[in-house]
Amino acid sequence: MSGEDAPAQQQNAVDQKQETKPSEEPKTEPPKTESPPAAAAEAAATPAATTEKVPEEETFTYRALVLTGYGGYDKVKLQVKKGKPTLKAGEVLVRVKACGLNFADLMARQGLYDRLPSPPVTPGMECSGVVEAVGEEVTDRKVGDKVMVLNRFGLWQEVAVVPANHTFLIPEGMSFEEAAALPVNYITAYMMLFDFGNLRPNQSVLVHAAAGGVGIAATQLCKTVKDVTVFGTASASKHETITQGGVTHAIDYRTKDYVEEVRKISPKGMDIILDPLGGSDTHKAYNLLKPMGKLITYGAANMLAGQKKNLLAVAKNWYHQFSIHTLSLIQGNKSVCGFHLGYLDGETELITEAMNTILDFYKDGKIKPRIDSTWHLEQVGDAMRKMQERNNIGKVILTTEPMPEEEKKEETKKEDKKEDKKKEDKKKDDKKKDDAKKDEKKDEKKEEKKDDKKDDKKDDKKKEEPKKEEKKEEEKKEEPKKEEK
Amino acid sequence: MSGEDAPAQQQNAVDQKQETKPSEEPKTEPPKTESPPAAAAEAAATPAATTEKVPEEETFTYRALVLTGYGGYDKVKLQVKKGKPTLKAGEVLVRVKACGLNFADLMARQGLYDRLPSPPVTPGMECSGVVEAVGEEVTDRKVGDKVMVLNRFGLWQEVAVVPANHTFLIPEGMSFEEAAALPVNYITAYMMLFDFGNLRPNQSVLVHAAAGGVGIAATQLCKTVKDVTVFGTASASKHETITQGGVTHAIDYRTKDYVEEVRKISPKGMDIILDPLGGSDTHKAYNLLKPMGKLITYGAANMLAGQKKNLLAVAKNWYHQFSIHTLSLIQGNKSVCGFHLGYLDGETELITEAMNTILDFYKDGKIKPRIDSTWHLEQVGDAMRKMQERNNIGKVILTTEPMPEEEKKEETKKEDKKEDKKKEDKKKDDKKKDDAKKDEKKDEKKEEKKDDKKDDKKDDKKKEEPKKEEKKEEEKKEEPKKEEK
Repeated sequence: MSGEDAPAQQQNAVDQKQETKPSEEPKTEPPKTESPPAAAAEAAATPAATTEKVPEEETFTYRALVLTGYGGYDKVKLQVKKGKPTLKAGEVLVRVKACGLNFADLMARQGLYDRLPSPPVTPGMECSGVVEAVGEEVTDRKVGDKVMVLNRFGLWQEVAVVPANHTFLIPEGMSFEEAAALPVNYITAYMMLFDFGNLRPNQSVLVHAAAGGVGIAATQLCKTVKDVTVFGTASASKHETITQGGVTHAIDYRTKDYVEEVRKISPKGMDIILDPLGGSDTHKAYNLLKPMGKLITYGAANMLAGQKKNLLAVAKNWYHQFSIHTLSLIQGNKSVCGFHLGYLDGETELITEAMNTILDFYKDGKIKPRIDSTWHLEQVGDAMRKMQERNNIGKVILTTEPMPEEEKKEETKKEDKKEDKKKEDKKKDDKKKDDAKKDEKKDEKKEEKKDDKKDDKKDDKKKEEPKKEEKKEEEKKEEPKKEEK
Repeated sequence: MSGEDAPAQQQNAVDQKQETKPSEEPKTEPPKTESPPAAAAEAAATPAATTEKVPEEETFTYRALVLTGYGGYDKVKLQVKKGKPTLKAGEVLVRVKACGLNFADLMARQGLYDRLPSPPVTPGMECSGVVEAVGEEVTDRKVGDKVMVLNRFGLWQEVAVVPANHTFLIPEGMSFEEAAALPVNYITAYMMLFDFGNLRPNQSVLVHAAAGGVGIAATQLCKTVKDVTVFGTASASKHETITQGGVTHAIDYRTKDYVEEVRKISPKGMDIILDPLGGSDTHKAYNLLKPMGKLITYGAANMLAGQKKNLLAVAKNWYHQFSIHTLSLIQGNKSVCGFHLGYLDGETELITEAMNTILDFYKDGKIKPRIDSTWHLEQVGDAMRKMQERNNIGKVILTTEPMPEEEKKEETKKEDKKEDKKKEDKKKDDKKKDDAKKDEKKDEKKEEKKDDKKDDKKDDKKKEEPKKEEKKEEEKKEEPKKEEK
């Protein structure tokens, strides 16, 4: 697919630069040479303008997040790239405003996602922004178009070159943040529910991680069909939000056996189960299916234990990986499907069709991406952490807006704390490894839940989330009110 | 499910009778005591009338096919049962006119279908007839209603007791034969294509055994959706018929590699594949799927080699049985489904819904069951043989009409020949066993095809099909003409 070439090309343009910057701790620091402290306030007001005024090929610079190697959160570093990328036929250059974080990005950081080329590489499968230049043969996009972008990788940077048919016009009234939150989660949820799932009125759907990006999208999409019952798993603190969002029965998977809970309410089981977990949870899902039921597995979140690759967790997931014989499918009248948007990048037509329907739903007010929090590029580590530790409700977003100077100072103070955090992470990872070892020996299931619970309590103690986020939350609360009018 | 009780009950009523009749060769002989040769012509004209005139409980008799043990065609024997079955609440008694043969019946005869209780037992999953009595609480069926019936087993007899909700009213203009041909094949094809398959305009479907009952039903149902391309496999002699029936690309699987043929026309593969074969063909099907493609497997016809259970064929099928890991499904964006109507007998609502849509299609002239041939109960062995040897185009039907006396004499003459046939069968089975052994050693595929071809040529030599069938064929040719008016 031609889309794959684009970021690789950009990569080539700056490889030299990257390789000269393998330093360990520049992570959250702004590119000081480009925007010196004195000019920072101005730069914040007109972020892209400064570079746009000097469009010379040589002086063109932009910030980019780069995965420098597999490992923890600090492996994604903010770097400055030089040289304006050239456009091939059919491509557009997008000035990126916001980027979406996805589970695949977390897997990729640990080296568990084979659709991302080897480091150094810029991750990022979705973003929103403004078309700044169009290549030859591009007829349906023009400079100034607000677009959302879906690509295999390479979108976590200020400037991205992508095939025009990987962009979708942002409808009126949709913010850049919403636009960056929409493509991956909604296309994933849409294709699972309406293509593989064949969702129809009166059916029941089990949505795991119902407070996550896909979970919230799936819940909203379920609600576009008459009398669909949504069972959603999430930790108790998120139940109010997901219930308001459309989940019929919220289940706390950390304190209860979700299989039992589902059976209590729906003894025959489920028509559709969306499974992002993998491992033993896929087995449970299979057994929870009604006749003619569809199990759609779309991830292996259970593989992620701790911020670095946990070989035991990976091995365990492989060991418990679901494998099914056709005779069992026949006798059960069941369907098992696998979905991952990342492996569907050749299917432009299918994706465009899905996107068009999704945008119609948006225009009709039937769906609305929920933003959990927005982070500066400098804060990508914290953003990933929030998502990986399941503390988000909705989408975690990166903005390319430069960080205000005062926030930077805050960040610097926090740097000291980060060292402590790192130690804590280390402890936590070690603990997880121990847990994984324990689990291997024991007979999994309930034991796992209890361990999760312990981790959860730990999470509650860390109250280091940026203030900005809280502000955003308030803004969000106002937004729906406006919509209702 | 309550439906399971009905035939079992009937079974009890006549067990004694059956066990006194374990003779080896009464197969195609009519029940001489009940309809002596002298009265035969009359009986043929008013078949059911004779019994209906003497409805006393004790004198009530009816003919039934009984599987007396697992094995070859001669294991299904025609017996006479005594005693009128009693009705429980919700049940109806149906005077059976015609019965459908299905692949599951052939598997059952060899002991390969676990939904049929152990012999002695009356097989038969579908029939048509007239309601002769209704039990308590039956409100939507009355005496005289023409119905088609779907049941787990027990319908290959003149009288069947079934739950009323296993019956469906026969629409006007539909013959008893058509009605007996419809339930299993059309519900199977419908649920595979429209529930699991989620068939939509412009998609492509691969239908194996496109001249078989399900194959013809699936082709017709595909044609109810705009611009669907149907790839159908069948031996060359059947191509004209299936092409007229709606198959876009007919492929001779006996002389060509169907995978190659499909790829030539549709390099990206198929959206939906219906797989009744199992074994290595399921692997091929999986690899032939497009992204977002659905493989729906609904049988293991490859297990059937020869008329008796062929342990090597069964073992080979198991050995090659398709087993899939979820990570492979995820990376391929694929769906694997299993379907068998026999395991869906608790799902009355789903089945009724499907049936109603199918009957609407029938009324609109969009579908029409194609009858390959109709056989007397005495001829059940030949009927099964025709189907198992893949010599049918469309549905093989049994009629409960008594056999005219002259045909009986023909049958008796043929009995002698049958001994020869048996020997031939034995030889053929032995050959198949040898072939299976060879295949185990060799690298399957093309080798199999050639062997099939040899068998095929042999089949051509046997021209012992009843004349009646040819007559029927002529009738059928006239029928569509009438319809066209």
